[in-house]
Parts: sequence; C-alpha cells; structure tokens
Amino acid sequence: MSDTDLFAAATDDTHAQMMQATYEALRKHGYSELTIQRIGDEFPKSKSLIYQHYDSKDELLVAFLEYLLEQFEADLPIGDDFENAKEHLEMLIEYALPNEFGDDHLDFARAVEALRGQAPHDEAYQEQFAATDAFYRRLTADVIRVGIEQGVFRDVDPEQTAAFIVASVHGARNQRVTADTAAPVRAARRELEQYIRTRLVADDQ
Amino acid sequence: MSDTDLFAAATDDTHAQMMQATYEALRKHGYSELTIQRIGDEFPKSKSLIYQHYDSKDELLVAFLEYLLEQFEADLPIGDDFENAKEHLEMLIEYALPNEFGDDHLDFARAVEALRGQAPHDEAYQEQFAATDAFYRRLTADVIRVGIEQGVFRDVDPEQTAAFIVASVHGARNQRVTADTAAPVRAARRELEQYIRTRLVADDQ
Repeated sequence: MSDTDLFAAATDDTHAQMMQATYEALRKHGYSELTIQRIGDEFPKSKSLIYQHYDSKDELLVAFLEYLLEQFEADLPIGDDFENAKEHLEMLIEYALPNEFGDDHLDFARAVEALRGQAPHDEAYQEQFAATDAFYRRLTADVIRVGIEQGVFRDVDPEQTAAFIVASVHGARNQRVTADTAAPVRAARRELEQYIRTRLVADDQ
Repeated sequence: MSDTDLFAAATDDTHAQMMQATYEALRKHGYSELTIQRIGDEFPKSKSLIYQHYDSKDELLVAFLEYLLEQFEADLPIGDDFENAKEHLEMLIEYALPNEFGDDHLDFARAVEALRGQAPHDEAYQEQFAATDAFYRRLTADVIRVGIEQGVFRDVDPEQTAAFIVASVHGARNQRVTADTAAPVRAARRELEQYIRTRLVADDQ
C-alpha cells in the first residue's frame, strides 16, 4: 500500500487531510512523542478544525485506525478477478507481507504496529485491531473455500487454515518492523509458501 | 511463565525488585501512562535508588527488557532432558503460546507487546526484540536439527522452518493480547500442530 493509495481523497477532503496529517506525524515522531500539536503541524487547514472534531488525541487515533481499516479493505485484492484461488491467496499474502518492503510500506507498517502496541491497555484500539484481523481472516477463509470448490485446494478446514496463515503473516510483519530485520521474515515467507504447496494445494495441481 | 518465576530473586535483590516494580507499574497503567513515579510506587525501597541507577524512563525500560530476555532464556525448556525432539519442539511452542493463557501469562504478554509497540521508533528496543526473536529462532532451529539427526523430523531447512514457526507463534501471541481474542489463536495453534505433523515429522514416526 503506498501513501498515494492511502490518502487518495486527501487533496480536497478535510477528514482525509486530517488522517494524512495524523499519519505523517506518527511516522515522524512515533506514538509516544505524538501530540495533537504535531498532528496540527502537518495539517494544511486551521488547527482548530481538529479540536472541533476530536476531544483528545486518543479519540483522533481511534478514528485514524478506523480510516486505515477502511483503506485496507478498499485496497485489498478482492473480487472475481481471480480465476484461480491459489493466485488470489498468493496476492493476499504479497499484499500484507511483501518479499521486499518498500520505504512507504515500511513506514506504514511501523505506524500501524506502534498503534497496535497500545491495544493491550485500550479497549477501543483492541476493537479496531480485532475487526481488522477478523476481516483479513474472513477474506482468506473465503478464498480457501473457493479453492476447495475449484478443486485447487484440498478439503481443509478454511477457518483454521486462514487463522494460521494470518497469524504467521502478522507475526512476520510485526517482527519486520519491531526487530527491524528482513532475512528471517523472508525465510518465514518462503516456508509459508512451502506450507501452502504441501498442505493446501491439491496433489494433482 | 508465572510472576513467581520472573521475579524469583526479587525478595532480596534491589535490581530484581526494581524490575518487578516496573512490571507491576506497566501491568497497571500500560506503557503510555507509565512514569518513573508510578514505578517508584511499586518499589519497596527508596525511590531515589531508581534515579541513582537510571537517568530516564526509557533507560529503565531497556534494562527491563534485558531482564525479561534473561528470564525468558533461563526459563525456556532447554537442554538434554528431552529424548525426543518432537516433544521438545511442542514444549517450546506451549511455553510461548499456551492453548489457554492464564491471567499471569496474559498480563506478562500484554506488558511485552506494549513495549514492542515502541520498537518501530526506538533502536534500543529494536535491538532487544531482535535479540529475543533471534534467540528463540536459534533454539527452535537447534531442536529441529537434533530431530533430523534422530530421524524424527524430515530433512528440512532448520532455519527456514524455525523462522516460520516462530513468526506464527509470535503473530498468534501478539493477536491474543492486542485484539483480546482467543478462538482464532487456538485455531492457528491447531493448524501449526498439523503443519508440524505433515511437513516436519518423518513419515515413519
């Protein structure tokens, strides 16, 4: 996901501009140094507009998380464009866990995981992340179900398989930005591809 | 890991007492509300002792992460007690990702993942988490290597397999406490067990 995709609406939409300002401030300062003042510094309109919409930094950040989830859903490769469920699954994984993270994607992932670190002690954050995780899991399970119908995948449990794939993608992605390490993440992804080939893809494919 | 294991030395050791105080404060207040004052409130000796040892909250928290890693290493099921590498691997997974998280373990995992959320913007944290991840990965790869020698496991790539197992365990654990959800985590673990059975364990075992 590039910045351009994320804030495509930001040129003329106040809400999208506020979200982009939050993103830029989070990227520059990290969560613990983030203030509404610093978000305001990135916002092209009057700072008072931010205070009109949000009572606190936390309220603004929960709205920001909601926005990210909406963009994530809108941007994910979904739909009937995929003739083959295996290719669709590979696209879903590549989207969340690319073999090479570009700078934009890395900045985005850092911002998301920094917010995620607040979730253990904040229910509003927890709900947002639970919704994101559930959405990505549901989509993955749907693709697996289609693949079973197509005869591309074996008759596995779609929910259980999706839960495992999403957990491993999430874990590798989180490690990528919290331990700033690339090689083990690439190794994990290579093994994820082996897992899909040996456990999920039907023998005659 | 129970609190008792973590702070076994805390009854008479100032450093361990400081670490326990940090843990209790982090558990009660979360990262973003954590202050040296609040850590001092949990410390049985004079607060000035904390300031004598650490110039800032961040310095104290990096020392706390180091302490956690030491305890994690000391507490992990390592060594020659395991005749069977498959059982040893299962123990390693159960240790980090139990089927049922007890309250203590959940509190501990919440505290760790809250600190982890700071790592994208803090190199000292990143280094600590990179070291923890690398240690757990190395240990897992060693167990896989022993299993291959024993004929219990197939001739897989130990590092690649370990990277994948550790990423999926980490992802499920992180989801457990940041989305406060148990069912998908149990599903992911069940599928991890299937993966180990079908891809790792040798056919004649």
